[in-house]
Amino acid sequence: MNLEAFFSPKSVAIIGASEKLRFGYFVTKSILSRTDIRVYPVHIQADKIMGVKAYKSVNDIPNSVDLAIFLVPSEAAPNAMKECAEKGIKHVIVLSAGFAEVDEVGARRQEEIVEIAKKNGMRIIGPNCMGVTNLSNRFTTAEVIVDSLTEGNVAFIAQSGIFGSVIVDWAAANKFGLSKVITLGNKCDVDEIDVLNYLETDEKTKVICLYLEGIKKGRGGEFIETFKRVTSKKPVLVLKSGRTEAGASAVKSHTGSLAGDDRIFDAVLKQTGAIRVDSVEELLDFAKVLATQPLPEAEGVAIITNSGSLAALTCDELEKRGMKLAKFEPQTVEKMKKVAPYWTSIKNPVDIGPAMLQVGHQILEWVLEDKNVGCLLVISSPPGMLVKPNAMGFDLVPFYKVYREIMDKHREKSIILSSFGDDDVVRMAREVFDQSGIPLINSVQNAAKAIATLYRYKKYMERK
Amino acid sequence: MNLEAFFSPKSVAIIGASEKLRFGYFVTKSILSRTDIRVYPVHIQADKIMGVKAYKSVNDIPNSVDLAIFLVPSEAAPNAMKECAEKGIKHVIVLSAGFAEVDEVGARRQEEIVEIAKKNGMRIIGPNCMGVTNLSNRFTTAEVIVDSLTEGNVAFIAQSGIFGSVIVDWAAANKFGLSKVITLGNKCDVDEIDVLNYLETDEKTKVICLYLEGIKKGRGGEFIETFKRVTSKKPVLVLKSGRTEAGASAVKSHTGSLAGDDRIFDAVLKQTGAIRVDSVEELLDFAKVLATQPLPEAEGVAIITNSGSLAALTCDELEKRGMKLAKFEPQTVEKMKKVAPYWTSIKNPVDIGPAMLQVGHQILEWVLEDKNVGCLLVISSPPGMLVKPNAMGFDLVPFYKVYREIMDKHREKSIILSSFGDDDVVRMAREVFDQSGIPLINSVQNAAKAIATLYRYKKYMERK
Repeated sequence: MNLEAFFSPKSVAIIGASEKLRFGYFVTKSILSRTDIRVYPVHIQADKIMGVKAYKSVNDIPNSVDLAIFLVPSEAAPNAMKECAEKGIKHVIVLSAGFAEVDEVGARRQEEIVEIAKKNGMRIIGPNCMGVTNLSNRFTTAEVIVDSLTEGNVAFIAQSGIFGSVIVDWAAANKFGLSKVITLGNKCDVDEIDVLNYLETDEKTKVICLYLEGIKKGRGGEFIETFKRVTSKKPVLVLKSGRTEAGASAVKSHTGSLAGDDRIFDAVLKQTGAIRVDSVEELLDFAKVLATQPLPEAEGVAIITNSGSLAALTCDELEKRGMKLAKFEPQTVEKMKKVAPYWTSIKNPVDIGPAMLQVGHQILEWVLEDKNVGCLLVISSPPGMLVKPNAMGFDLVPFYKVYREIMDKHREKSIILSSFGDDDVVRMAREVFDQSGIPLINSVQNAAKAIATLYRYKKYMERK
Repeated sequence: MNLEAFFSPKSVAIIGASEKLRFGYFVTKSILSRTDIRVYPVHIQADKIMGVKAYKSVNDIPNSVDLAIFLVPSEAAPNAMKECAEKGIKHVIVLSAGFAEVDEVGARRQEEIVEIAKKNGMRIIGPNCMGVTNLSNRFTTAEVIVDSLTEGNVAFIAQSGIFGSVIVDWAAANKFGLSKVITLGNKCDVDEIDVLNYLETDEKTKVICLYLEGIKKGRGGEFIETFKRVTSKKPVLVLKSGRTEAGASAVKSHTGSLAGDDRIFDAVLKQTGAIRVDSVEELLDFAKVLATQPLPEAEGVAIITNSGSLAALTCDELEKRGMKLAKFEPQTVEKMKKVAPYWTSIKNPVDIGPAMLQVGHQILEWVLEDKNVGCLLVISSPPGMLVKPNAMGFDLVPFYKVYREIMDKHREKSIILSSFGDDDVVRMAREVFDQSGIPLINSVQNAAKAIATLYRYKKYMERK
């Protein structure tokens, strides 16, 4: 069954709609404010919710309803579920907590709603989650300020609502482009496999990020099959906790998930072509690079840097991950020799140091024209003195814009910018590059790892 | 020979002082503006530099000079060095480039100045560096805005000037407390061993960070001896590049250093008790924790979190590094049970989720009172909705200040705060904790690694 109605419902019932500033208030408010969706607040007592006519039961609603959102306490959920079934509602998001994650009573309630759903061909997201956020129509059941979000092509699947919020808030602050965000909570019905199936054909989504605590029992086979199919179309990044005993125990108390044997999971995941990451930061950095850059054609990686130390650290990380530095074509070297000061290192990495402002544009152009270069990392971390108003007060933005124009002529190559240090220096890089398709990765190590990920995914796709 | 005059000279000659906005301008300007140091600009042509009487040669200076700073091009360095020797100057910082790092001619010039120094009992920092920055008297030979820096107890030794600037600029932007910064450049004389010897007894320095590209030939024995002695007094963190072939080659063109066999270096370093880190971010995060937190007494690590997912990821990282989660005393569990909502997980990690605001203070106090807890990580990443003025507008600062008061009663324990996600949420945490002694580490993985580093250093000190 297609999950589209979860993301783009035409009519929504909010069961347990709240006009008090408590759980559910912001969801109620944000959905009620929409003019493109018919919204029906349901409340056992209230006649009106935020000025909108409220219904005692979904069955009192005169029209059909695509999606029901549950804000009621867990004890009221089974009855509400029955009424939804009678009404013919096929999609339900249970935001409320108090189910299998807390105790036996909650677990029984969860079983009850699942049973009703199965009997009636309904699908449930949750419980104990924040549901969905769809950036293309700005529909959200989560407690997020949807206007602060940037639309992009990275979908994010998390388990718990809070972690989902953390990621979404980070994305808002960093103008990181999202397509859809789904938090699955207890996964009583819809799980990551279902969502992956849905996102497989979602045109808005180019990269899928998945935070996972465990796979549902009996879903191993389907997990492998689905992941294999989806990764052959778009990259899937997986951050899984519960790798160790302590982690597995934490996961169990968190969402009741069974983490399983990590070595097995790791081996299975490798088979599927999904990319496992080790930290939240890797997840976000890799996703940004995969979402904005093409897979590199040529094998060689080039580095243009103003810091020899940062370049040396990058080279270490690249080689550790089996990457090769590009050997420049003779004409590239010849051209560079003519303009670069004698002390510049024009081997790869090209260390232009303080000559960046004089020769940076030319060097960038020639390196990008070099046929042996598949991927370019530009490390630009000039001293803050250069840009500070009380020092040299140099505005890097116009200089960077020329960098940017040159890069835009070579978007067939993978290009990453790394900047670290002074806050104004980094801000200028963010402005010109990061917010429009050339990813800024602060950490050179993560930039190197992201490059390795691009190549790894490219090789995987070639084998397919 | 003591290096003190490099950091706290009473009189300085600036050879090649510049009043034009080029290399050396800011150094000249910043040192000339000091009232606590006698400053003598030296210039072959100018009579005055920035309004101050200039001398044709150091030998024309009527008084004694503690430190000479070279801004002259490399071809003028040998002669200037001779004059400094005649004048009896014992400390020279050569900021200029154009020596061994570029070609044979430069290498010979470098040899010449070293020879003169040796004959005359002089010490040289550089060439091709930014020299020193001393936060306690704000004396700097580097192109940094020294007023923007925060004094603290972390010393930083880098090789290249640019990387030194990057770190210093980052520190300024993040109010990271530094004691002294030294960039060594080509290390023609003073090297990391000398600086370590000096910092060993520097009361302002509690933690030493070292970025290293290679060790000078024939200094291996002394390297081990010095590192062993210093690490038994204060932690030394080492970030070394040139671990791989590509990295070693990059290092060679950068500062002409020989990276050496990394396995040998690694084994040697382990022997000395120095702590090797894998990235710039680890270096800065670990330093912050070691500089502000005591070594933990009890073996157990406690986690209080509002995000189960972030806690699970932390547990994985802790166990991977051999850390143990604290088993709470029975009375701690009893007390928590009484106040925590039934759905709270009061095992370790204590996942208080959205109940953070209700029970956070009490839980924090009880966990810190628990004898089995040596180190506490508080993960506080509430949704941005909570604090945004256009949503709930809750000010976390007063809430955090009570956290802070409770923590301050337990400074015998190591305490770290981790916050990630919404920019205002993170800013509030930075305000209350990071800028006054409770380190904020955004990445939970790095927080876990920093905790492991604390314990590892503690064990090393116990074996001593």
